[in-house]
Amino acid sequence: MSKRDFLSTADLTRSQLDDLLDLAARAKGKPSAQGLAGKTLGMLFFQPSLRTRVSFETAMVQLGGHCINLASHDLYELEPEEQAVMDGRAEEHVVDAARTMSRYVDALGVRAVSRVGTWERDRRELLLRSYAQHSSVPVINLETCFEHPCQAIADAMTMREHLPALSGKKLTLLWCNHPEPKSLGPTHSILRVAAMLGMQVTLAHPLGFEVDSEVLEGARSAAGASGGAVEVVNDLGAAANGAEVLYARSWGCTKHWDDPEREAMVKRSLQDWRVDEDLMSQTDNALLMHPLPVRRNVAATDAVLDGPRSVIYDQAENRVHVQKAILKQLLT
Amino acid sequence: MSKRDFLSTADLTRSQLDDLLDLAARAKGKPSAQGLAGKTLGMLFFQPSLRTRVSFETAMVQLGGHCINLASHDLYELEPEEQAVMDGRAEEHVVDAARTMSRYVDALGVRAVSRVGTWERDRRELLLRSYAQHSSVPVINLETCFEHPCQAIADAMTMREHLPALSGKKLTLLWCNHPEPKSLGPTHSILRVAAMLGMQVTLAHPLGFEVDSEVLEGARSAAGASGGAVEVVNDLGAAANGAEVLYARSWGCTKHWDDPEREAMVKRSLQDWRVDEDLMSQTDNALLMHPLPVRRNVAATDAVLDGPRSVIYDQAENRVHVQKAILKQLLT
Amino acid sequence: MSKRDFLSTADLTRSQLDDLLDLAARAKGKPSAQGLAGKTLGMLFFQPSLRTRVSFETAMVQLGGHCINLASHDLYELEPEEQAVMDGRAEEHVVDAARTMSRYVDALGVRAVSRVGTWERDRRELLLRSYAQHSSVPVINLETCFEHPCQAIADAMTMREHLPALSGKKLTLLWCNHPEPKSLGPTHSILRVAAMLGMQVTLAHPLGFEVDSEVLEGARSAAGASGGAVEVVNDLGAAANGAEVLYARSWGCTKHWDDPEREAMVKRSLQDWRVDEDLMSQTDNALLMHPLPVRRNVAATDAVLDGPRSVIYDQAENRVHVQKAILKQLLT
Repeated sequence: MSKRDFLSTADLTRSQLDDLLDLAARAKGKPSAQGLAGKTLGMLFFQPSLRTRVSFETAMVQLGGHCINLASHDLYELEPEEQAVMDGRAEEHVVDAARTMSRYVDALGVRAVSRVGTWERDRRELLLRSYAQHSSVPVINLETCFEHPCQAIADAMTMREHLPALSGKKLTLLWCNHPEPKSLGPTHSILRVAAMLGMQVTLAHPLGFEVDSEVLEGARSAAGASGGAVEVVNDLGAAANGAEVLYARSWGCTKHWDDPEREAMVKRSLQDWRVDEDLMSQTDNALLMHPLPVRRNVAATDAVLDGPRSVIYDQAENRVHVQKAILKQLLT
Repeated sequence: MSKRDFLSTADLTRSQLDDLLDLAARAKGKPSAQGLAGKTLGMLFFQPSLRTRVSFETAMVQLGGHCINLASHDLYELEPEEQAVMDGRAEEHVVDAARTMSRYVDALGVRAVSRVGTWERDRRELLLRSYAQHSSVPVINLETCFEHPCQAIADAMTMREHLPALSGKKLTLLWCNHPEPKSLGPTHSILRVAAMLGMQVTLAHPLGFEVDSEVLEGARSAAGASGGAVEVVNDLGAAANGAEVLYARSWGCTKHWDDPEREAMVKRSLQDWRVDEDLMSQTDNALLMHPLPVRRNVAATDAVLDGPRSVIYDQAENRVHVQKAILKQLLT
Repeated sequence: MSKRDFLSTADLTRSQLDDLLDLAARAKGKPSAQGLAGKTLGMLFFQPSLRTRVSFETAMVQLGGHCINLASHDLYELEPEEQAVMDGRAEEHVVDAARTMSRYVDALGVRAVSRVGTWERDRRELLLRSYAQHSSVPVINLETCFEHPCQAIADAMTMREHLPALSGKKLTLLWCNHPEPKSLGPTHSILRVAAMLGMQVTLAHPLGFEVDSEVLEGARSAAGASGGAVEVVNDLGAAANGAEVLYARSWGCTKHWDDPEREAMVKRSLQDWRVDEDLMSQTDNALLMHPLPVRRNVAATDAVLDGPRSVIYDQAENRVHVQKAILKQLLT
């Protein structure tokens, strides 16, 4: 019996996605059975986390299980490269950390978002994939710079709660300005999931902020199969027009991935790429979504984030319900 | 039904205080019922903590509940100012952190002691109050520079265990020297609680180390209602005379709040403000109290801290029992 | 009734060691009874930890108990010297931290490995011993620079699983090269435990890397009583010859303990002190052991660490089973 991981939206079939969403919806609002009593989830955070950390710990605890949390400041440096001669700073190889943790816990979550090298290197999710390869227990992607599948499925759950049916609905994924270079994880994951669900997706960003071409092709192919569509626009006005869901988030420039100062320079002229009431008024009374954390009054204004169409906290809450569904599937 | 928080001794009526103390006393020494099974307390520590962290986690676990702990090193920087344009370092606004956490946990504790600006700014407890305002779950003050209510109620419980009745008893709150500038939280909270309990309070400190005038007025008003009294002395010898409880702690100079070097200079001539056996011998066989951590042989000598009248570890232990009472009131 | 601690292999009798190993073996593979329900283990980590942290937390949770974890970054600095005048950086004395924690938790684990001073100072395990002296609850050694008893007992358990009987078996404890100066804890502990179990121990290291003479004498004395033997060799070739267990680990130079640069210089000529297939072929088909973390391709090659005779992950797993036995003995 092969081990199941939860690493990428690219690994999900449509029926697996539907099953997860149904399982999460059924669990929401009901007292949790103690279905994971005696089970332990180890979580490794190589970057800060609020939602992912707390929503997973809440999910495990409500199911009767336990989380063991390690952050980079609890650990020494780890070596991800195979066959490395470890005479540098890394005190332990990921191989050994993964195999050791597999003797202690029932599943392992890994957050590894950092920019380490070029986009060509970082898009390979070296650290996450190395844990998945060497762990004998299921590994869960807690966000990389390439994917954030738990977020995207919680986002899909949120859209299903607020819209009667998703197929054919117009979703705009909108790039927003941000003082820091950000990962492409949430964007890639919701792009693929929305395409799988048959939505009419408009990916809107300034020139130079193209998403990964393989992900875009994958989303187009998924949309082809589901009756959806994916188009790309580079114009802010066109982006909002007719949108029934406006999903805002910043992401980094893959061309200048290892040169954040250059990205920052480019972004100086892009300050109008933010969501405000004017932009919202051009939509078809769109739901406003954002995966958080959000730079208020930079990426989106207080007025729209706190406005009547904002569902940003529902997205956050649904992390718990979706992750309970994922954990049950992996661990029972 | 409005949300209940636990933020300040100023919000407590005398009968609420008595109820808490009675509930804590009844719980002490008995096996805990699992009254908080399935409940989660989130704790945010923006400064180090030993007693508060461990006593709250112990309380929750003994009641069948769970703690999720986040420290500043687990998180990015948070923005507390309303309407801020977040183009600086803060990655998330307290508004969003508070509302998100409210979807995950049943109550939220916040420790935010740091000196950030002037006393006029810091006395407003901006971070704590922002969490309380924006959380839909109860918020508990785990210590600010202005108040430490959990500590003061545990102190009151300790005094009640060691003295037959508190009304009319002579309590001296004594400023002690310390190499670092300290918060006024424990001092303010015990000052108000002791006044509410009808004690004869002597607040003793060198000139320049006045406590917040609003707190002092509040304590005097509470003493008026309870039959107690509050006097201020600036003389170390007068401070100890006749005291039945000597409560020692250092606190910072509010006038030079944003200039710690000036405070340090002033304190160089105040090294005799410490508790030793001589000072204790001038009291009426006083109990020695200190909320810990204590600078041994600076604030108080080993001989008195480890002496027969010291109840410093009872104060620490009673944190657990008092906090169980607070948690039960907030969560059941 | 005196408090029991678990601090050193030197405190164990042979029959106590056998009891622990039997208890751990019986527990392995069986669902854990909830024998520590309601019990809490506090763990203080003054250095990073993966195996110790996660294996203890796993053990407690599987027994129905709870761990409260504090790392140095959660705390202020602590003062270990008795009678210190605390006008420096340390905010609290170990005396007070130990007595406070004793009011909150049922047992206390301490990891304190750092080089602080000379070997003569650090071999006294000042921080651990201070916690043990001042805690009223049992204290467990989670590794010092002098001992790592939990590791050594897990190692003994692993050898017992793979070899029909340990008495008379040839065990080589082999020094390996490493870019950093390392503690002597695991080496000292397995040396004493193996001697107690009647093994024929060869301690193999370059000149200058002698272990503590008191530990060596203690091991020789234990070997005398058990029918075992301890010899020291300074030749890599002689070390492997005939070994049935090859236990590799680096350790620091006690003579240059407070001069890591000098140790680094000495080690530049010792790069052949590593385990590879050639060295393994000179053994009597030895089991390969290492307590982890291991510097791959510096201390030992990938080929031998991942080879058929490597039991390094069994050693890691057995930490859980041995620690359950220790916790049950201390807490029930």
